[in-house]
Amino acid sequence: MIVLFTDFGLAGPYTGQMKAVLHGQAPGVPVIDLFADAPMRDPRAAAYLLAAYAAWFPAGTVFLAVVDPGVGSARAALAVEADGRWFVGPDNGLFAIVLRRAAKARVQEITGRPERLSASFHGRDLFAPVAACLARGDTPAWTALPPDAAQRPDWPDDWPAIVYIDHYGNAMTGLRAARLAPGTQLVAGGRTIARAPTFAAVPPGSAFWYENANGLAEIAVNLGHAAAVLGLAIGQTVTLAT
Amino acid sequence: MIVLFTDFGLAGPYTGQMKAVLHGQAPGVPVIDLFADAPMRDPRAAAYLLAAYAAWFPAGTVFLAVVDPGVGSARAALAVEADGRWFVGPDNGLFAIVLRRAAKARVQEITGRPERLSASFHGRDLFAPVAACLARGDTPAWTALPPDAAQRPDWPDDWPAIVYIDHYGNAMTGLRAARLAPGTQLVAGGRTIARAPTFAAVPPGSAFWYENANGLAEIAVNLGHAAAVLGLAIGQTVTLAT
Amino acid sequence: MIVLFTDFGLAGPYTGQMKAVLHGQAPGVPVIDLFADAPMRDPRAAAYLLAAYAAWFPAGTVFLAVVDPGVGSARAALAVEADGRWFVGPDNGLFAIVLRRAAKARVQEITGRPERLSASFHGRDLFAPVAACLARGDTPAWTALPPDAAQRPDWPDDWPAIVYIDHYGNAMTGLRAARLAPGTQLVAGGRTIARAPTFAAVPPGSAFWYENANGLAEIAVNLGHAAAVLGLAIGQTVTLAT
Repeated sequence: MIVLFTDFGLAGPYTGQMKAVLHGQAPGVPVIDLFADAPMRDPRAAAYLLAAYAAWFPAGTVFLAVVDPGVGSARAALAVEADGRWFVGPDNGLFAIVLRRAAKARVQEITGRPERLSASFHGRDLFAPVAACLARGDTPAWTALPPDAAQRPDWPDDWPAIVYIDHYGNAMTGLRAARLAPGTQLVAGGRTIARAPTFAAVPPGSAFWYENANGLAEIAVNLGHAAAVLGLAIGQTVTLAT
Repeated sequence: MIVLFTDFGLAGPYTGQMKAVLHGQAPGVPVIDLFADAPMRDPRAAAYLLAAYAAWFPAGTVFLAVVDPGVGSARAALAVEADGRWFVGPDNGLFAIVLRRAAKARVQEITGRPERLSASFHGRDLFAPVAACLARGDTPAWTALPPDAAQRPDWPDDWPAIVYIDHYGNAMTGLRAARLAPGTQLVAGGRTIARAPTFAAVPPGSAFWYENANGLAEIAVNLGHAAAVLGLAIGQTVTLAT
Repeated sequence: MIVLFTDFGLAGPYTGQMKAVLHGQAPGVPVIDLFADAPMRDPRAAAYLLAAYAAWFPAGTVFLAVVDPGVGSARAALAVEADGRWFVGPDNGLFAIVLRRAAKARVQEITGRPERLSASFHGRDLFAPVAACLARGDTPAWTALPPDAAQRPDWPDDWPAIVYIDHYGNAMTGLRAARLAPGTQLVAGGRTIARAPTFAAVPPGSAFWYENANGLAEIAVNLGHAAAVLGLAIGQTVTLAT
């Protein structure tokens, strides 16, 4: 299975062209749209989101992950294997949290270049063919890097900040709920917010946080739009209180 | 064929994770995105929309239908068979109009629970596996309910209200056009609106209503955005005039 | 492969119903979403976008292309073969630029009509079955037209105007970059904009234009939203300066 994780947006031709490459070069492999709206041009927020969501997928999954504001610059192209899952994309920190949390990992630099490589769309021209190659079980043109050669920015294990806001207005943080002490409250948008097991456990209109279905601490309002009510945005800091 | 009908939004990871489950548990079965933007947290408007659109699909289709503001509460999980189509989702009225219009129906309560059931994402953890099971031709863990045991809210056969606004600004109502007397006019946004066969039949900028491609009375403006021009929103009442 | 190019919007039931028809009538043929947000009700801007993006796909691809504000009127239904690719959709100029640029083309008028043809959704009822038929290698009910019988509006070979704005705010023009003299500058939104090879070649916040991954001249701002910064909209004229 190939899973797409990009900031390409839902609209426009980008995801479709990548899928055309994948269908051509890895026919019959299911392709799943996970995020087309990962934090735009923000590899840091995207890194925490990717690590949380990738963990749900089985070993063998190939993630084609492109949040790549530096496309066309000298940044390297990577294929990272972490606990049996593959991650293909730019070397800009996007895979830093996946790597840090992996029990077993290796980092390959993609050295092959296609005959026609556009300056602005490496997702289609470079990364998609490598993802298709891995999904077929073949070996791309690459070279092994020392484990710490990839970009490893000095980011915390868990990030106390908003990393995604969904359609309902729920705001995911870069914090894993299981790492938070019992009774932890989150302060966001000037409000101190207590934990609840799920939406129906609080009155309509009440703010709470809960462990979402992928393990992240997520701020929500029952039957309301938390981001609008609390004034939340991607990248905004969340404080822990007890 | 499995058809998705949800209010999960186009963005974000929800539809993708459901599809990963479906691909894993019903490999090779086509999965169609019908609505990812069904009326949000509004099982009533969604019920009329679902009944109108489901009728277009062939017998044997499995609808994975999740508009589920009460997720995590005690509401039951259902598999409904209506005129040869299956509907899997929460027992909150979402299937009430499908059931009322069916010549032949039965209601099963889903009794099995997966090993890992998140509190907030039953679409992925509970309903998708049941839909996959039905699409494979297998039998889920369930128990038959009396035909009237499912939620059957006191909603009218046709609902004179806006149930969906599309990309062009056209506003679908919960009224089946074939049930309206010849010459029926609709009053919406303070305007009395006459019927026309199609867009090209009225001048640019003119409001009209017509029978849409799935049988609903739909309010439109030729080459314009009806919802903006007339001030329409989901849930808003429409009055019939003759 | 069947490629979808429409102005149906990302939301709503339209693309899903077309895909259900395609899966039913051309099972196993991959279906790719290219644009669901082609310029709305604007066959002219859409014609330049389609010609640029279709050229990237291999011969044998079938484009199901529907930007059809005149649906329900007397406009003809076409299947156009241009340099080995098929285009199925309305005769309103949408295929005019593809036809003009083709080395070898033929135009067929679709004469067959399905048993149930809605007034407003020919994409589902008429064009999708023809696209499926062509993708299967079968011959639809049609009749050959003289090469110049299709709508051939008096549009320029390249159109100095904005034809698409993407998720990042980048604004594509109807100009092929390879046709522009070296040193050409574009004037848009009152600003004179020089060419750069790619985003990373200019400072953050700077406007530039570049040849996008499909050959169009595209106006962008490094790490910014060009359309918002420069005040650009679809259909707006761009001037060439040297």
